[in-house]
Amino acid sequence: MTQSNSKQDLLTYTVRLGDDAIILGHRLSEWVSYGPFLEEDIALGNVSLDFIGHAQMYYTYAATLSNEVGDKKAEDDFAYLRDEREFQNHIIHELPRGDFAYSVVKQLLIDLYNKHYIEELKSSNDETLSAIAAKAAKEVTYHCRRSKEWTLRLGDGTEESHLKMQRALDDLWGYTHEIFEQDELELRLVAQGIAVDSASLKDKWFDDVKAIIEQATLKLPTSEWAVRGGRAGYHTENLGHLLTEMQFVHRSFPGAKW
Amino acid sequence: MTQSNSKQDLLTYTVRLGDDAIILGHRLSEWVSYGPFLEEDIALGNVSLDFIGHAQMYYTYAATLSNEVGDKKAEDDFAYLRDEREFQNHIIHELPRGDFAYSVVKQLLIDLYNKHYIEELKSSNDETLSAIAAKAAKEVTYHCRRSKEWTLRLGDGTEESHLKMQRALDDLWGYTHEIFEQDELELRLVAQGIAVDSASLKDKWFDDVKAIIEQATLKLPTSEWAVRGGRAGYHTENLGHLLTEMQFVHRSFPGAKW
Repeated sequence: MTQSNSKQDLLTYTVRLGDDAIILGHRLSEWVSYGPFLEEDIALGNVSLDFIGHAQMYYTYAATLSNEVGDKKAEDDFAYLRDEREFQNHIIHELPRGDFAYSVVKQLLIDLYNKHYIEELKSSNDETLSAIAAKAAKEVTYHCRRSKEWTLRLGDGTEESHLKMQRALDDLWGYTHEIFEQDELELRLVAQGIAVDSASLKDKWFDDVKAIIEQATLKLPTSEWAVRGGRAGYHTENLGHLLTEMQFVHRSFPGAKW
Repeated sequence: MTQSNSKQDLLTYTVRLGDDAIILGHRLSEWVSYGPFLEEDIALGNVSLDFIGHAQMYYTYAATLSNEVGDKKAEDDFAYLRDEREFQNHIIHELPRGDFAYSVVKQLLIDLYNKHYIEELKSSNDETLSAIAAKAAKEVTYHCRRSKEWTLRLGDGTEESHLKMQRALDDLWGYTHEIFEQDELELRLVAQGIAVDSASLKDKWFDDVKAIIEQATLKLPTSEWAVRGGRAGYHTENLGHLLTEMQFVHRSFPGAKW
């Protein structure tokens, strides 16, 4: 492989990590001042901003890389000027906010994934990705603690909260398979010690999820259905609606000098 | 005046300060992931959370006071279980988000007000209010710096941004008079050295605003109209819509054990 193809791979990979973060950050921002109580409002807002901050780091790096491959883009171009098919986030990140239990379970599944993912990314041969991961790691630890606490509180809470949590878990399970799969591009980067070998994280993630789910008196889903396609740009209708909102202000003032 | 009447005054005053903060914090949260670019998204989100954090401090204190006057309420009751007529925020805080220029001018006017207000509140004879003000002061300084920078950038920017800023300033000016007026309740607390004498801040605030507005090549409005009534519970239709959204989740699960 040539140097420039390899650089293009790295650019795509970096943008993907940014896409996961910004789409989830946007979703979480929908909770700001709609949380069940004030303290949680603020906490959810901060978590949302953590993810948008991670996206900013990835997109800033992607902007540098885009310059090196001769297709210069700015950080904001990635967030605001791409269409649905160009976003390569895993689908779980774009799913609607749902009720509070749904958001809690979604975060649990994602946060535990990020815990292992970010830990591995810290050892990436790419120094910038490694540095981003090091910065993000502390926040991810906090996210995991929050998600675990909420899962225990609601799963082992009232009959109603338990039912809502179980339903959310059953609904979300089919979206967790995709996050451990890799296409050829990511496999090439894994071989170079740059990308995380996410398939290798699945057992550890599963053990973590299982332990918390059982402690929360919930049952692991057994259904076999799985949704795929996010990394190839295939999305649910949710992403289109989200982008319409997220990109509206920026696109309304194309090239505006703020 | 009896001790308990005085305590009731303090409770009402504290709730009012909380109302100003939470309503503005909610409005600002509408910008999260809708900002014109990523960095500003995150900044606006943080400012929003600052205000919601201030509201939380005021409401927590109000909850303590409510217990002392024999009408026990929890922090969240103030935010989520009161109707429009019970909110006593100044009307400027409930005005719609508007375009970005509108939000910038609104923040400039409010942040400069808060700068002087919080500085005075630090000297309150009430130790808790004084402590809250001391905590909030640093954030308010940061808010002022941001608002000034944006006002200069957009006011003295393109022809379009200049026009939008001037229009926003003209539209908002009539809502600034109310924030320097005080009813009998606040005057009683001023006499006790507890509440801020906001009327005394108007000249300093005006000088600050004038200096920045002129540096931004904008003109001070000369119109005489003024909107009043927030502290008495009279609001624009905007507040009702905002509360419907803000209180929906909490009210959907009345008394839920989360």
